[in-house]
Amino acid sequence: MAQRVPLARRAAALAANVSDAEGHESIPFDSGHAFPGLLPDLSAHAARAFAAHREEMLQYAPRRGLAPMREWLRAQLALDGVTVSMQELIVVNGAKHGIEMVCRLFLDEGDTVAVTAPTYFTALPIFRSFGADFLEIGQDEEGLLVDALAEGIDWLRGQGRPAPKFVYDIPDFHNPTGRTTSLRRREALVELCARHGMFIVEDSPYRSLRYEGDPVPSIKALDPGGLVIQVGTFSKILAPGIRIGWLACAEALVARLIQLKADGGSSPLSQRLILEYLTPERLAAHAALARDTYRRHRDCMLAALAREMPQVRCTRPQGGYYVWLTLPDGASGDELARRARSMGVTVLPGSAFYARGRTGFPGNAAAEPNHVRLTYSHAGPKDIDEGVRRLASAWGSMK
Amino acid sequence: MAQRVPLARRAAALAANVSDAEGHESIPFDSGHAFPGLLPDLSAHAARAFAAHREEMLQYAPRRGLAPMREWLRAQLALDGVTVSMQELIVVNGAKHGIEMVCRLFLDEGDTVAVTAPTYFTALPIFRSFGADFLEIGQDEEGLLVDALAEGIDWLRGQGRPAPKFVYDIPDFHNPTGRTTSLRRREALVELCARHGMFIVEDSPYRSLRYEGDPVPSIKALDPGGLVIQVGTFSKILAPGIRIGWLACAEALVARLIQLKADGGSSPLSQRLILEYLTPERLAAHAALARDTYRRHRDCMLAALAREMPQVRCTRPQGGYYVWLTLPDGASGDELARRARSMGVTVLPGSAFYARGRTGFPGNAAAEPNHVRLTYSHAGPKDIDEGVRRLASAWGSMK
Repeated sequence: MAQRVPLARRAAALAANVSDAEGHESIPFDSGHAFPGLLPDLSAHAARAFAAHREEMLQYAPRRGLAPMREWLRAQLALDGVTVSMQELIVVNGAKHGIEMVCRLFLDEGDTVAVTAPTYFTALPIFRSFGADFLEIGQDEEGLLVDALAEGIDWLRGQGRPAPKFVYDIPDFHNPTGRTTSLRRREALVELCARHGMFIVEDSPYRSLRYEGDPVPSIKALDPGGLVIQVGTFSKILAPGIRIGWLACAEALVARLIQLKADGGSSPLSQRLILEYLTPERLAAHAALARDTYRRHRDCMLAALAREMPQVRCTRPQGGYYVWLTLPDGASGDELARRARSMGVTVLPGSAFYARGRTGFPGNAAAEPNHVRLTYSHAGPKDIDEGVRRLASAWGSMK
Repeated sequence: MAQRVPLARRAAALAANVSDAEGHESIPFDSGHAFPGLLPDLSAHAARAFAAHREEMLQYAPRRGLAPMREWLRAQLALDGVTVSMQELIVVNGAKHGIEMVCRLFLDEGDTVAVTAPTYFTALPIFRSFGADFLEIGQDEEGLLVDALAEGIDWLRGQGRPAPKFVYDIPDFHNPTGRTTSLRRREALVELCARHGMFIVEDSPYRSLRYEGDPVPSIKALDPGGLVIQVGTFSKILAPGIRIGWLACAEALVARLIQLKADGGSSPLSQRLILEYLTPERLAAHAALARDTYRRHRDCMLAALAREMPQVRCTRPQGGYYVWLTLPDGASGDELARRARSMGVTVLPGSAFYARGRTGFPGNAAAEPNHVRLTYSHAGPKDIDEGVRRLASAWGSMK
């Protein structure tokens, strides 16, 4: 029980709102940083880890990751309905590194990747740096438009070109739109990809941060066999600075990924810190605290948007970090982001989230100029209120 | 002064030889692991770092590395005669990741890389995974044969093919041969590469581990401007498990490397642990202890080899981790490695260290079958004695 005290104390501090992100010259609605009040002091856990595992923490680690780390992941994934063996897991240096490893595994110059439009803006330059082109598939309330993807594949085939090497999606609390893909859409996606021998890269950083509604099975849980590569990370469960993530995929792919993992094993020091801190009990407590915190942030942001910017539509995410704003037709998200910055709140313009490939598929979802993405993870409630007021002022100055 | 006590205590323990790598079923002459007795307990430093820098350690870090980390590197490199600005440094996840980043920066399918034959066996699959082919240049006592490299470049040009994108070498205490490149050979290499617009990748993990003789200026210190990419790591200065290294190169290359650094910033937690532990005073003390320790290991191994295997030639490294054995003509390093393993000592056969490319350059140094590489870093003196006895038995069984 003693281990719960720091969490309880932090929870009280959060409730009292004393840990708000103060001192920022600009209120950060643009970053995927954690709320600072949620970042634990790992000193005691570091001391225990060094006492018990010093040599393991400081020597080279196995490329696939420490065995207890993979056992931890296996057990956690099993609780989420994903059955994988220890041989179907590899530890990487965070989710972005996982995505890069998947690209090294699959992509040759000129290959096609299917992405949602919009999609996670940091993944795009990784795909581009491997010479990939894009099918850009729209979303509706149920997530990626699988019928449009099917048309895209047929169109590529009709041009004598191969199907995309993989589909990349963030089905839970999508970045940037906050939407969650429905079960039937996930099933349709798996069925389509199985038919065409296409892999699915399921980027799943926010899955444990659901604030309401019933969980939908992960795409990996629907995997008929070796089709889905799930990308996971401790950045949202624990802390970005720990820089540890994982891939869950077929054993044969893990075997090749180990060969490609040129950096050697991911830091065993970081892996042991995670294992020391994230006992099942503390993981549950920390996740509950994170959910409570971010749910309040979300509610605060949605209330402020309804109050201050009633003309602007926004998504209502059931979890994760992001709200996607749709400005009235003709309004520019780029211009709003510029004006907002000068008024002391930073947001990302929607234009950053489109791949803008050159495949020429007529069904590609066009980049829409009238969006911005807001993140409610980093700033606390007081700053969220003030940030939305500043954003509303910036918006008011455009009309 | 208090901070010196643990080092002094460890030094005493090392001298008493109580920390020898016991309990290994096999004596490890094959790994580049650190001697376990040199691995510091970082608990207290972790506690201080978390007290002062918790948020910085646990959020995302800048892709080029923390500013104080780069300032630390700048100052250390300056002490070694290398003048670089903060903008000419990028922090990476260890030296292997640095080499991979260099490959992502420069290599296209079919490019040529010039390497020594033999060379660092872990770098080879990285180069190959980017589709590189090889010029394989021999070494003598002064290091890489620059005249042979010049012939190789001319030969490629004569075939209508471009010069290699870069030369990769480990000029200090070479892996696997233990040789150190002479100053005049370094100058000739820089001159040749400047003439052909070829980059030099100077992999320099062992540079601070010189046990005798005068230091030779690093190749980076001879850089006439933007030609040399120096790869550094904390794996040998501090501990492999910390998984932090760096590249020192031209500002324009750093700018592109930052774009390619898909994993985001290297762990700020690890960077802050390094900064907290490696004050200039403690760095000097730790490096001195490491040099004393590894010099004794080397002396022990060389003495044991002279005693137990007088028919076998070996290099006498002035620093670093490695001794390169040359068996009499006709003897197989592969066979010796196999027999040694079955007798309880693991060594790497020399055959692992040759690129075996397909450029067809007639001057390529041929892979020689009669070598093995011994590492004296991981095992302590008692184990080194016993390991060489076992190796001698294996060798005796072959005659």
